[in-house]
Order: sequence, then C-alpha cells, then structure tokens
Amino acid sequence: MSTLNKQIVLAARPAGFPKESDFRLVESRMPVPAADQFLVRSLYLSVDPYMRPRMAAGGRSYARSVEIGEVIVGGVVGEVMESNHAQFAPDDIVEGMFGWQHYAVSDGAGVRKVDPTLAPISTALGVLGMPGLSAYFGLLDIGKPQPGETVVVSGAAGAVGSIAGQIAKIQGCRVIGIAGTDEKVRWLIEDLGFDAAFNYKTTPNYYRKLVALCPNGIEVYFDNVGGEITDAIIRLINVRARLVICGQISQYNLEKPEMGPRWLWALIVRQARAEGFLVFQFADRFAEGLRQMAQWIREGKLKHRETIVDGIENAPRAFIGMLQGENIGKQLVKIADL
Amino acid sequence: MSTLNKQIVLAARPAGFPKESDFRLVESRMPVPAADQFLVRSLYLSVDPYMRPRMAAGGRSYARSVEIGEVIVGGVVGEVMESNHAQFAPDDIVEGMFGWQHYAVSDGAGVRKVDPTLAPISTALGVLGMPGLSAYFGLLDIGKPQPGETVVVSGAAGAVGSIAGQIAKIQGCRVIGIAGTDEKVRWLIEDLGFDAAFNYKTTPNYYRKLVALCPNGIEVYFDNVGGEITDAIIRLINVRARLVICGQISQYNLEKPEMGPRWLWALIVRQARAEGFLVFQFADRFAEGLRQMAQWIREGKLKHRETIVDGIENAPRAFIGMLQGENIGKQLVKIADL
Repeated sequence: MSTLNKQIVLAARPAGFPKESDFRLVESRMPVPAADQFLVRSLYLSVDPYMRPRMAAGGRSYARSVEIGEVIVGGVVGEVMESNHAQFAPDDIVEGMFGWQHYAVSDGAGVRKVDPTLAPISTALGVLGMPGLSAYFGLLDIGKPQPGETVVVSGAAGAVGSIAGQIAKIQGCRVIGIAGTDEKVRWLIEDLGFDAAFNYKTTPNYYRKLVALCPNGIEVYFDNVGGEITDAIIRLINVRARLVICGQISQYNLEKPEMGPRWLWALIVRQARAEGFLVFQFADRFAEGLRQMAQWIREGKLKHRETIVDGIENAPRAFIGMLQGENIGKQLVKIADL
Repeated sequence: MSTLNKQIVLAARPAGFPKESDFRLVESRMPVPAADQFLVRSLYLSVDPYMRPRMAAGGRSYARSVEIGEVIVGGVVGEVMESNHAQFAPDDIVEGMFGWQHYAVSDGAGVRKVDPTLAPISTALGVLGMPGLSAYFGLLDIGKPQPGETVVVSGAAGAVGSIAGQIAKIQGCRVIGIAGTDEKVRWLIEDLGFDAAFNYKTTPNYYRKLVALCPNGIEVYFDNVGGEITDAIIRLINVRARLVICGQISQYNLEKPEMGPRWLWALIVRQARAEGFLVFQFADRFAEGLRQMAQWIREGKLKHRETIVDGIENAPRAFIGMLQGENIGKQLVKIADL
C-alpha cells in the first residue's frame, strides 16, 4: 500500500463561478489512526451543490467555511482499512464526511455503516444517502403533498430533484419538472414518470410555460435553484401552498445577492408558506427514510441515475460541471474498486 | 330619520399613493331591507391597510377588487334599525363588512353581534376585532413564540402590531418594536412594555440597529411592512426562526413589485420558515381569541389605543394618513353616537 495520500484542497476562494485553478491536488503523508480512530480508503467521492457556499468566506453557509489549503468537504463511501475503534472493523463499508481525499481517519462521528449486499455502495451518496433523504424529508415533511395536488420540482434531474419528483408521484400527485437540457426532460417524463417537464434554457417565458403545464395552479414547490424560476412559480401558487426551499443553486456563484421582485405579499394572499431545511434536522429519522426508499427501489417505484467520473484529479471538473448542470442524477467521482 | 344614505365610493384607481380625489362622497337612497335582511346604521368605520390592495385592479389582493363607483369595503360597527331577519333585532349592535357608508342592509353573512356591556363597541373593529385576532392567531399559531425568545414586530404601533407585541410579552418573550415616529417608540416602551423599539425613519442602518437590540438574534418576526426592514431582519434570524407575514404596507402603493435582494438561501441556512396568513383562516377559533384577549384586557395585560376622526367625509383622509403612518393604534372614523 502506498504511503502517500492524495487530496484536493482549496487553492483560492472562487470569485463567481469556480475555476479549476481554485483547487489543487496535493500529496501528503498517509494519516495514521490514533486510539479510537480508524483509517478509511475512499471508493466514491460525492459532488454536491452545497459545497459551493462552503468555499465562500464565512457567513454564507450553515457550516464553517473550508479554509484555503484545507481538503474540500464532502461525503465519501469508503472501506475501513485499519481500526482502533470498537464499532468499526477492517472491511466495513462506511459513509461519512471524509472529504475529497484518498485516505482519511475518523473517530466515527457522523459515520454510518453501509450494507453492500442491499444496494450498490455508491447509492449511499445518492438515493440512499443525503440527497435521497433530503428529497424524502423535504418533500414529505415540509411539502406535505396530498393526492391530486400539483407539485413542481426545479433542478428536477439532479440527485435530489429526481427523487423528490418520484416520491411526489408515489404520493399520487401531478408532477412537473424543470431541468436544463432536452435529454434531462426526456428522462424525467419517459423514465421517471413525471407528468410534464420543460427545459428552462430554451423556454423564453417560465411563467407562461408553467401556466400551460399547471392549469390548476401549484400546491407544492420543491426548490433546488431559486432565482427567476422561483419568481415564476410564486405567481401560480394556490391557497395554502408549501414552498420547500432545499437549494438555491442559481445563487451560489454570485458575489452578492441578486435582486429580484419582492413577493412576500403573495404568501399573504395565498396563506402560503416557504420553509428552508437541512437534512440533518431529520437525523433521528434517517433509518425510516432509508428503509422506505429501499422498499420503493425494490418495488421498482423509485429509480435513480448516476454520472460518474474516474479519478480524484477530475473532482474539480466534475464539481464545476455539476454547477453548470452537466450531470444527470447523482454526480460521483470514483476513486477505487471495492 | 333622513331618507338619504351617504357613501364613500372609489372614484379612480389610485396610481401609487392614494389621493383624496380617488374617493368621492355620494348621496343615495336609503337601502330597504328585504325578506331575511336587516338595516344597519353605522357608528364606526374601520380604516385598514388591506383596503389599499383591494383598490387596485384585479389580482393583487385575496378578494375581488372594489370597482370604480363601488362603496369602499371595510368593517363597520353599527346598530340594527329594522329587521326582517330571525337572528337580528332592532337595537342589536353588530360588526360586519358593511363598507364606508351611513346605512347598509345585510343578510347576516359574516356579521357578529357585539355586547356593548363588555367593552366599548369601537373595540370590535380593533383589539376585539379583526386586527386583534390577526395579532393573536398570527403570533401564537404561526409565530409560536416560546418564553425567552426574541420577537421583532414591524408596524409595531399599528392596530395589529401593538397587540402582537404585547401578546409576545405575555408569552415571556423579549420584544423589539419598529415604528415610524419617536412618539410611537415612547408609547411602545413606556406604555406597552416593549423591551426596546426604534424609529426607522431616523435610523440610517436598520441592520446595525437590530444587531444592537437583538444581540442573541431573532426567533420570531411579525411583519406588517416588508421591504428593507424585512431584509435587515432576515440577516439576523436564528435557527428555526418563524417569519409571520401579516402585512406588507411598504409595498401597497407601488405600481409594480419593488426589487430587493433574494434571501431564500437564508431560510435554508437557518432552517427557517416564512408564512403568510389571512385572519379568516382562523374563523372557527375567533371566539377563543376574543375570550382570551378580553381576559387579558380585564387583567390589565393588554392595552390598546384608537385614533378617531369624525365624519364619513374624513374617511379618505384618515385612510391616506394611516398609509403614511399618522395614526397610533387603531384608526377609526366615527359616524354617530349610539
């Protein structure tokens, strides 16, 4: 086994849209687990939108910023190589926030074991991980969709949106997806069973398109993107609508907040609610969510898709590509085979 | 008894801030109650911010617009003069949406009887009417304030805000009020027991002022005004904060939506919620709210204040003055003595 670790660190705080030069691949000494720690070898790295605000200087994210020179934060599925920890043993497959690197040590905080016989281990970063759980709890607990209601999902072909839309279908809703390529739109309608979807990049007037696709208005909006798409949605919400604010990817690369029309008055008129959430607030119910989604997958009701690039050196490009909407479903970086 | 009715009708849709010429005083024949109707003589007219959006062309309010030539909508406390209705008898004091006029007929829909021995009858349009109920249900049911939490109220010296802030004090919260004159600020602190308050018209930086007055952040915001005050609040909300969107008076006189910085990302970071409401959604619990507030008034825990002008011809000026923040507490127009 090599005695060198490879890591992607933050080279510079991105100004606006990240560039590959904002990241640097470094080699460092292999970490050594201390008492009550274990060593993990990375198999898959997760690439997620939330990482962008964490690369900004303090205050824009819900967690502390990544500092210059620090390893990029992120979920990883890996294999335990050595352990001084009572609950983790060599060969265990684990998921945790180990960051973009080949090897990490952990004291087990926030780490869960993954059963490789239940589903491909990469799903622990997608449909059976934080993105899937965000879709599950955000849609069901905050959106509270009822059969027959109209649910619109933005960022609908991403790791979270594609699951949220399918769960809304399982609940008996009419589901409209918004995505950024014709290929994604076809996938949503033909493979995932969305009732309708459109490519916002080729749609000149979001509002008129939504009026046509949502003739009875909108009860639930699952928002991954924010900005002008969300502005258009708000003009169409029905009484007691629920806006689930999961992400705002359209805003993450802006140096200062974009201006938009004020719309709180619409919440009064419609007696409606906008609520933001972080998946961690549902931590004590993760097992419930994973059990239910695993069952839906077995029953063929819930599908997922992954976009995988190989090699840690390609993680920054994959991340930039995801911010530009190049991926379909969950974006992963494969580091090694099990 | 005169056989003429006096009415204030909409003469023109206000362009921006209403002018007196947007209203017209007209005389018309006395209405005559048909079968199952009764005739009401107005004693007090209510003047409320929500009337402004209802004067705009369709779509900006939660109810249909007042048309040109129609009587201005509004709550009235009056006395039943004649009745063909089984539930209402002459001399009953009633509260209902009879509009800005001396006499109206009603079939009793949405009308409640007022007990003049319990409190001055004008309070049926204020603390023991829609404004008080808006404060009660908006704060308690949507804001859900807990003892020790920080509650900020905008439009704090108005009919709704002054009650909402006092109810928050009764719940054991630290309460900060925002108002538009030094006299209002003194009233909030010295008479109503707010912990702090400030005059936004003489405060150059709302955010810095709020940082100073809310050193532990903000859990509940009761919003009557919107705009830049609300922008400043959002930068200071704590985890799981509740933004109660009751009114947006800063926006009602704009011809098109004002632009402001987008802030949905703050709802995610703080796992927070913004919810609009209309008091009517709590209609089946009005009796509970009125009973509780009447008890607090008797116990000296809940105070209220009225700004009263005389004569229906002064209703438009009173309305314009209220939109400019001239009133303290509930703005009324007195039509006649009981």
